[in-house]
Amino acid sequence: MLISENLNINEKGHLTIGGCDAVELANHYGTPLYVMDENFIRNALREYKKSIDENYENGGMVAYASKACCFKEIHRIVMQEGCGIDVVSGGELYTAMQVGFPAERIYFHGNNKTESELRMALEYNVGRIVVDNLTELYLLSEISTSLGKKASIYLRITPGIEAHTHDFVKTGQIDSKFGITLENGDAIKAAKIAANLDGISLKGLHCHIGSQIFDEQPFILAAEVMLGFMEQVRRETGITLTELNLGGGFGIRYTNDDCPKEYSEYMRLVSGALKKKAAELNLPVPFIVIEPGRSIVAPAGITLYTVGNVKDIPGIRSYVSIDGGMPDNPRYALYKSRYTALIANKANQPANCKYTIAGRCCESGDLIQEDAMLQQCQRGDIMAVLATGAYNYSMSSNYNRLPRPAIVMVNNGKSRVVVKAETYEDLLRNDI
Amino acid sequence: MLISENLNINEKGHLTIGGCDAVELANHYGTPLYVMDENFIRNALREYKKSIDENYENGGMVAYASKACCFKEIHRIVMQEGCGIDVVSGGELYTAMQVGFPAERIYFHGNNKTESELRMALEYNVGRIVVDNLTELYLLSEISTSLGKKASIYLRITPGIEAHTHDFVKTGQIDSKFGITLENGDAIKAAKIAANLDGISLKGLHCHIGSQIFDEQPFILAAEVMLGFMEQVRRETGITLTELNLGGGFGIRYTNDDCPKEYSEYMRLVSGALKKKAAELNLPVPFIVIEPGRSIVAPAGITLYTVGNVKDIPGIRSYVSIDGGMPDNPRYALYKSRYTALIANKANQPANCKYTIAGRCCESGDLIQEDAMLQQCQRGDIMAVLATGAYNYSMSSNYNRLPRPAIVMVNNGKSRVVVKAETYEDLLRNDI
Repeated sequence: MLISENLNINEKGHLTIGGCDAVELANHYGTPLYVMDENFIRNALREYKKSIDENYENGGMVAYASKACCFKEIHRIVMQEGCGIDVVSGGELYTAMQVGFPAERIYFHGNNKTESELRMALEYNVGRIVVDNLTELYLLSEISTSLGKKASIYLRITPGIEAHTHDFVKTGQIDSKFGITLENGDAIKAAKIAANLDGISLKGLHCHIGSQIFDEQPFILAAEVMLGFMEQVRRETGITLTELNLGGGFGIRYTNDDCPKEYSEYMRLVSGALKKKAAELNLPVPFIVIEPGRSIVAPAGITLYTVGNVKDIPGIRSYVSIDGGMPDNPRYALYKSRYTALIANKANQPANCKYTIAGRCCESGDLIQEDAMLQQCQRGDIMAVLATGAYNYSMSSNYNRLPRPAIVMVNNGKSRVVVKAETYEDLLRNDI
Repeated sequence: MLISENLNINEKGHLTIGGCDAVELANHYGTPLYVMDENFIRNALREYKKSIDENYENGGMVAYASKACCFKEIHRIVMQEGCGIDVVSGGELYTAMQVGFPAERIYFHGNNKTESELRMALEYNVGRIVVDNLTELYLLSEISTSLGKKASIYLRITPGIEAHTHDFVKTGQIDSKFGITLENGDAIKAAKIAANLDGISLKGLHCHIGSQIFDEQPFILAAEVMLGFMEQVRRETGITLTELNLGGGFGIRYTNDDCPKEYSEYMRLVSGALKKKAAELNLPVPFIVIEPGRSIVAPAGITLYTVGNVKDIPGIRSYVSIDGGMPDNPRYALYKSRYTALIANKANQPANCKYTIAGRCCESGDLIQEDAMLQQCQRGDIMAVLATGAYNYSMSSNYNRLPRPAIVMVNNGKSRVVVKAETYEDLLRNDI
C-alpha cells in the first residue's frame, strides 16, 4: 500500500519508517524533521553494486551522486559500502575529505568548476575529473602540469539522447549547458586534444541523459552511442578507452502512478546491449561507472510536519498548513513535483479528503502539493511527506529566515541525529 | 540607460554601483558577490515615509517587509530611518531583536505561526500581530492570557482583489492559503470574536493583494473594500478600527519593459481614494501601514559573477556559465523571472550578443536568464545581474553544497562586508 517497502503502519495505526514510529520521532525531535532510513540506503547501494558485479566482467563502480543529499554521515555510509561518490563542487568534495573518503573513488563533475576547485581536486588526488569542456581541459592541463601531476579524466559527452522526462531535467540532448557535443565533431576533436595534452590522462567518457527515467531504452541507446564513439576514438587516436561512466537518472516511485523497474533489471538490460555492441565493435567491455543519487536516498527519506491551520474555502478548496514548506522542500514550487503525503498518526484511516498542502512561508507559491488525498486533518496532526530523501535537504533554503530541520537517521527501530537542526544563532552567524 | 539611477558607467567603461567600480568589488571580495547600495535603501525608505506623512493626516508607518532580504544591517538601517518592519517568522523577529529594533514598530505576519513564535512575539512585545485565521486567534488568546498580556492585533482579510501579476504571487483572491475571507461572512464573524476575546485587542485590519503590481487600481480597490468592511465592523460591533495595513506589492523595474509608477504617486492616488471613501462612510482616516520589501531592496542590489566557459552550439544557442546560479538566485528557476544582466568590465560596449546565462549547478534548470542580450562574453569577464537585492539572498540555498556569497554594502564609493561569505566549514557545522 505505501510507496516504499521500508514504510509500514504499526498497531497504533501510526506510520513507521525503519521500524521507528513516525509520530514518536516527531514528538521526540520536533518538527519539521527529515528522517532517513539507513538500511534502505545501504540496501540500495548493495543492490546496484551486486548488479554491476554480476553483469560486467571488467568490473565497475557505483558512485553515489552526492548532490541528491550530501552530509558527512551519508558519505560515511557510502564509503563503508565500498562505493564511490560523484561530487559537483568543492563543498561536496570537502565533505568527502572530512570523513576520509578514499580519493580514488571520487568522480568530480560540473559545467563550470573553478580554478581553486580543480586545484583542490588534484591536491586531494580524486580518482577522475569529468571534464565538461575544452576551456576546462586546457585549464586543468595548466594546473596539473604546474603541480607536477597527471589528471585522470573523463570527457563529458552530450550524446544527443533525449530521455522522456520533465523539461527541466533533460540533459542529454544537444541544447545543453553540459558537455561536448558528439554530432558536430566537437567530441572527437576534444578527445584528440586530451590525448596529447600535458598533465592529462584520458581514461574514459561520461554521459548523463536525464533524471527520473523509467524506461531502459534511453540508457541502452546512450550506451551504444558512447561505445560507437569509443570505437571512433580508437580509430582516430589509437587509444582504447577502458572506462565508461553512464551517469544516473534512474526513476523512483514518488506516487503509486510511478512504476520504476528493479534496478537490477536496468543493469541486466543495459549490460546485455552494451556487451553485444562491444563485441560487434571488437572493443573490450569497459569498466562501468553509474551514478545513482535519487534512487539511493529519495525513497529512504520522509519529512514530518505538524499540521497548523486547516482552511476550508467552500466550493473552492481546503488548505492544510504545515510548519515547513518550500524552504525544506522547494520541488513542488520548482517543478510541480508529485509527492505522496499522509497523516502519520492516522495512517490506518482512509485517505478520502482532498487538501492542498500549504507551507508556512509568506508566499502563495509555497505549496507542497495540490489536491492531495489525505486522512481528515486537524491541528496537531503529524503529516508525513514521502520520498523526500533526495533534493530536499540538498536544495533547502532559509527563506523567511526559517532554520533548516534536523536530519535523523533511523535503523531497525533506533534513531540518531546525523545533521543537527539549525538554530536562530546559526542563521545570524555571518551577519556583521 | 541602466535600469536604476544608482548604477552608472565610469571612465574605464566599468559598471558602478553606489560610486564603487563593480569590477574592483569583484576583484577585491571575490565572486559570486551580492552588492547592495545603502543610499538607495535609505532613499527608498525616506520616499515612502515622506509620502505617508504628506498624504495621511492621522499618520502611518512604513514597515519594511523583511522577507525580501533579512540580515542585521538591513534591520539597523530601517531602524535608523525611523521605519518599522514586517516579520514573518521567529528567525526574522530574532534578527530584529539582535539589533535592538523597537518592538512597537514590528508587525508579525504568517499563515501558520507556531505557538513558540507567538509566545516569542508576545514576550518581545511586538507592536502588532497580524492574525491570519481563527485557529491562530484562539491560540493567541490562550497564550496572551496565560502571560497576563493583551495582544494588539490586526485581522488578515482576503478582500477578493486579484492583482494582475504572476500566478504564483497572487494573494488577494479568495482561493488563498492566507487570511479570512470577506465575501462569505467569515471576516465579520472573526471581527466579532476578536472584539470579545480575552487577551486580544483588535486594532485594525490587514490585506495584501499581490506582488510586483504596476497598477494603482488594485490598491485603490482594496483600500475601498477594506474601509467598507471597517464600516461594517463599526456597525455590527460598535468598534471603530483606526489602523489599516495595506501590505506591499509595489512593482519594480527588472528590465526596461517594466514601468513602475513613482511610489509617491501610488501614495497620492491611493490616499485620495481612501480619504474620499472614509468621508463617504463617515469614518476617520485610519493610521496607514504599508509594507514595501522588493521596492526598497531589489533595485539596491546587484550580483557579480565571474564568467567561466562560453559554449556556442551553432544554430541553437550560446551558453555562458557563471560561478553562481540557482543557489544564490532561484527566481528564474522558480518563476522564469526576467532580469537585466551585463558584463561589468565592458559596460560601455554594445550588448548585441544573445546568451543563455547558465549557473554552475549540476542541473539543467539552473539558468539565470535565457536569450539575454549581453556584451560579447569571454572567460574571466565579470557579469552583473541587476535588481537582485530582493528574494535572492533571502531565498538562497546551498544546493550542490555551494557556500553562500558575502553581501557587501556600498555607500558613496566605499564598501564594507555586512554578511560574511559562508565557508566550507560553515556548511558542515551541523553535520555529526
